[in-house]
Amino acid sequence: MSGHSKDQGGDSFLSKRRFTRRQVLGLAGTFGAGAFFGGGSVLASESAGGQTVEFYGRHQAGIATPQQDRLHFAAFDLTASSAGEVRDLMREWTEAAAWMCAGESVGEENENAFIPPDDTGEAQDLTPGRLTVTFGFGPTLFESDGEDRFGLAARRPSALREIPDLPGDALDPDRSGGDICVQACADDPQVAFHAVRNLARIGRGRAVLRWSQLGFGRTSSTSDAQATPRNLMGFKDGTNNLRAEDEDLMKRYVWVEDPGWMRGGTYLVARRIRMLIEVWDRTVLGEQEQTIGRHRNSGAPLGKKDEFDDIDLEARGPDGLPLTPMDSHVRLARERLEDERILRRGYSFTDGIDPRTAQLDAGLFFICFQRDPQRQFVPLQRRLGQNDRLNEYIQHTSSAVFACPPGAGRGGYVGEGLFA
Amino acid sequence: MSGHSKDQGGDSFLSKRRFTRRQVLGLAGTFGAGAFFGGGSVLASESAGGQTVEFYGRHQAGIATPQQDRLHFAAFDLTASSAGEVRDLMREWTEAAAWMCAGESVGEENENAFIPPDDTGEAQDLTPGRLTVTFGFGPTLFESDGEDRFGLAARRPSALREIPDLPGDALDPDRSGGDICVQACADDPQVAFHAVRNLARIGRGRAVLRWSQLGFGRTSSTSDAQATPRNLMGFKDGTNNLRAEDEDLMKRYVWVEDPGWMRGGTYLVARRIRMLIEVWDRTVLGEQEQTIGRHRNSGAPLGKKDEFDDIDLEARGPDGLPLTPMDSHVRLARERLEDERILRRGYSFTDGIDPRTAQLDAGLFFICFQRDPQRQFVPLQRRLGQNDRLNEYIQHTSSAVFACPPGAGRGGYVGEGLFA
Ligand code: HEM
Ligand code: HEM
Repeated sequence: MSGHSKDQGGDSFLSKRRFTRRQVLGLAGTFGAGAFFGGGSVLASESAGGQTVEFYGRHQAGIATPQQDRLHFAAFDLTASSAGEVRDLMREWTEAAAWMCAGESVGEENENAFIPPDDTGEAQDLTPGRLTVTFGFGPTLFESDGEDRFGLAARRPSALREIPDLPGDALDPDRSGGDICVQACADDPQVAFHAVRNLARIGRGRAVLRWSQLGFGRTSSTSDAQATPRNLMGFKDGTNNLRAEDEDLMKRYVWVEDPGWMRGGTYLVARRIRMLIEVWDRTVLGEQEQTIGRHRNSGAPLGKKDEFDDIDLEARGPDGLPLTPMDSHVRLARERLEDERILRRGYSFTDGIDPRTAQLDAGLFFICFQRDPQRQFVPLQRRLGQNDRLNEYIQHTSSAVFACPPGAGRGGYVGEGLFA
Repeated sequence: MSGHSKDQGGDSFLSKRRFTRRQVLGLAGTFGAGAFFGGGSVLASESAGGQTVEFYGRHQAGIATPQQDRLHFAAFDLTASSAGEVRDLMREWTEAAAWMCAGESVGEENENAFIPPDDTGEAQDLTPGRLTVTFGFGPTLFESDGEDRFGLAARRPSALREIPDLPGDALDPDRSGGDICVQACADDPQVAFHAVRNLARIGRGRAVLRWSQLGFGRTSSTSDAQATPRNLMGFKDGTNNLRAEDEDLMKRYVWVEDPGWMRGGTYLVARRIRMLIEVWDRTVLGEQEQTIGRHRNSGAPLGKKDEFDDIDLEARGPDGLPLTPMDSHVRLARERLEDERILRRGYSFTDGIDPRTAQLDAGLFFICFQRDPQRQFVPLQRRLGQNDRLNEYIQHTSSAVFACPPGAGRGGYVGEGLFA
C-alpha cells in the first residue's frame, strides 16, 4: 500500500494557504510588505490573556520578550540552490511561524482525506503557550568554504563572523554552526517541538536539520517581572542580566543599526556548556560560592544578604583577601569593558547519559544577544575561558552565531531586507 | 586547589539526615517499618493544593495517580556487591524520594560551607510539581548471566521475565534493561531532573546510570478527570485506557497479589518507540485515520462523531469493507484476549536529530502497567508487531521490564518485603 503523497511542494502549499488565510481574516492587500505592527513596548506585545506573544513587530519576538520556560533550538543547513529559493523559504517560514505563534494551526487543509494534513496536529488542543519563533542567519549563508553560495557575500554584516577558537573549547562540529537557526521558545515543550517540526517539514527539499537542542528550564530572567531561576548548579542565574524593559540599555547593547537590512535586529551567540555535575556535586559549598562569587541560597554577593545588593569588588574579608575572589565567575564577568554587556537568555538542558562516563550529560545552553559578538561575547568569553574558576566544572561543547534580522511586518517576512 | 570532599558515604549521609528530620517532624519512633499510610482512594492521595502527591501508601505513586506532564526515566545498574548494600540503597532512595515528593530538599546540610550541600539545589524555588518517584526491579537484579548476584534468585516472581524478542524489534541494548528503574514524573521537568540527579548521587558507588529517557508530554489519560492528550502523530491517545478510578479493573489487570512481597505492586514495561515522523507527515489524512482506526481531529471511532462513542468493529462502509480496517491499530489492540488489558502511561519524546538521517528522532516512550507482562503486554505486542498497519511508521528501539513493589509505609522502604 502507499498512502504517501507526492512531494507537496512548498510553493503550492504556501499560496493555497496564504490565500485562504487572507480571505478569512480580511487582510488581503491591506498591508504591504514592510508595513510594521506593534513595535511599542515589550510588554504591550503580549496578548491580554498572556497566552500569545505577537510575532510581527519592529524586533523579532523571543529576544526582548519575557523568557518562556522551554526551548527547542534548531540549526538548519540549506540545500536550496538559489537566493530566490531561500527567500521563498523565509516567506513560508515567516507565515507559518506567525500562525503558530497566534495559536493557529499551519495551513487550512487539515480535514481533507486525500492529502497529508498541512499541520502535524500534536499542538491542536494545547494553548499557544506564549510561543515565539526567532530566526537567524549564520555566516555560512553568506560564504561557505570561500564560496559565495547565494550571491549574498557582499551583504554580510561585518559583525557576523565565525566565533574564533576560545580557551578551553571542546567543540563538537556536528552540534555547531548552521546556515539558519530557529529558536522556538514556549511554556509548553510540545508547542515548541511542534513549531520546529512543522518548519522542518515546510523546509523539505530546501533546508535540512543540522542539529537541535532542547532546553527544559530558563536560566535567566530578562525582565523585572520575572523571578530569577536557578541553573543546574543550584545558583540563581540572571540576577545581573540586562533588562528588556530598559530600552536605553537595549539600544546601546543589543539592537543593531547597520547595515540597513539589520536595523532593529541583533546577533545571537549559542554555546552548549556541559556541566561536570558529578564533580560539582562533590564540591563543598564554600568552594561553590567562591567559584561563582555569590551565595548559593540567597543569590546575594559574597558577604551581602540580598540577591540584588550591589557587589563590592573592593571588599576584603578578615584575612585581607578579596571577598569576591579574583578568579570568581561574577568578578571576571563583571570586570568587562563597558561595551561588553550582553542580554543572556539561556536554558538548562539534559541529553541523557554520556555513554563514555555513565554520567548525566547536562548543563547550560547559553544564548546571548548583542550588537556585535566580536566586541561583546568574544572578549568576555576569552577572559572567562582563561581565568574563570568555573572552568574546572564546565566545558563548552558547541558554538554558533547568527544574525537575527529585525521583525517582519504583516505581509512581509523575516530577512526581507537581505533578499530585497 | 581542591574543594572536593572525601567520598560522602551513603550511610553517614542517611543517618545524619534521618535523625534531623525525625526531630523536626516529631516522628521519631512513631512508625515502625511496614506501617502503612494512605492507601485510600487514588485522588485522596493528592494534597489539597494539588502540588504534592503522597509518596507513602499501599501502592507506589506514579502508577494509578493522575499522569503528570513530564517524565525523567532512569535505569540503573548495580555495582553493589551484597544484598545488604542494595537494601541500604533502597532505604536511602525511599527516604530521599519521599522528601522530594513532599517538596522538601534532600538532607539538612545545605548551609555548611565545609561540606558539599546534601541537595543539588536546582529545584529550591520550584513547586513540588506533583512529583512522583516510582521504583522497579529488573530481572537482572535476581539473576544475570546465570549468576545469582545477590542471593535473590529464589525470590524472583515468575511474572518477571525478560521480554522476548518481538516481531519488528530494532532494540538498542544500551537503552534497554537495567537492574533498577526510577520513573520520575512531575509537571515541571526541572523537578523530575532534580529527582533523578539526586538519586544518582546518593547511589554513587552502588549504582550507575545505564540509560535515561526524558518525556515532554503525556500521551495517555489515566483518569476520568484528564482530557485526552495528543501524541506526536497528532492523534488523541489514551481514549480507551484503563481508568485508575475503576478500582475493580485496576485490581483485575494491574495490581499483583503474589508473591507476598509484591502484593499491591505491579509490572512496568517500557518501550521506546520511534516514529518515522517524516514518512507519517507525508501520508494522506485518510490513510493516517485508517492506520490508527480513529478520526484524527475528534478522536472518534471511524464513522462516529464523538471521541467516546463506542467502536463498532462489525460496521461496514458502503464498499462492504469494515469501517475499522482489519489491520488498524485500535482493532488489533482491542481484539485482544480479555486478560490482555493494560494501563498505558506513556510520554512523547524527542532526542534531537538522528545523525544518520538528519530527521528528528522523536516518538512515544510507551510505559504500561499490568499484573503479568507475559500474559498482557507480550501477546498484545506480538500481535501488533505482526499485523499492525502502524508498523510502517514506527520502530521499537528499546525495551525493559521491571517489578514495581508495593508502596512503602512511613519508616519503611520500597522493596522491603524482598530484602526482609
Ligand atoms: C555553565 C556556564 C555558566 C554558569 C553556570 C554561569 C552562572 C552564572 C551565575 C550564577 C551568575 C550570577 C547571577 C547573575 O548575575 O546572573 C552569572 C553571572 C554572569 N555571567 Fe555567567 N554562567 C555561565 C556562563 C557564562 C558565559 C559563557 C558568559 C559570557 C561569556 C557569562 C556571563 C555572565 C555575566 C555577564 C554575568 C553577570 C556578571 C555581573 O555583572 O554581575 N556566563 N553567571
Ligand atoms: C508509537 C506507537 C503507538 C501509537 C502512536 C499508538 C497510538 C494509539 C492511539 C491513537 C490509540 C487510540 C486512542 C486510545 O484509545 O488510546 C491507541 C489505542 C490503543 N493502543 Fe496504541 N499506540 C502505540 C503503541 C501501542 C503499543 C506498543 C501498545 C501495546 C502493546 C498499544 C496498545 C493500545 C491499546 C490497548 C489501545 C486501546 C484499544 C481499544 O481498546 O480501543 N499501543 N493507540
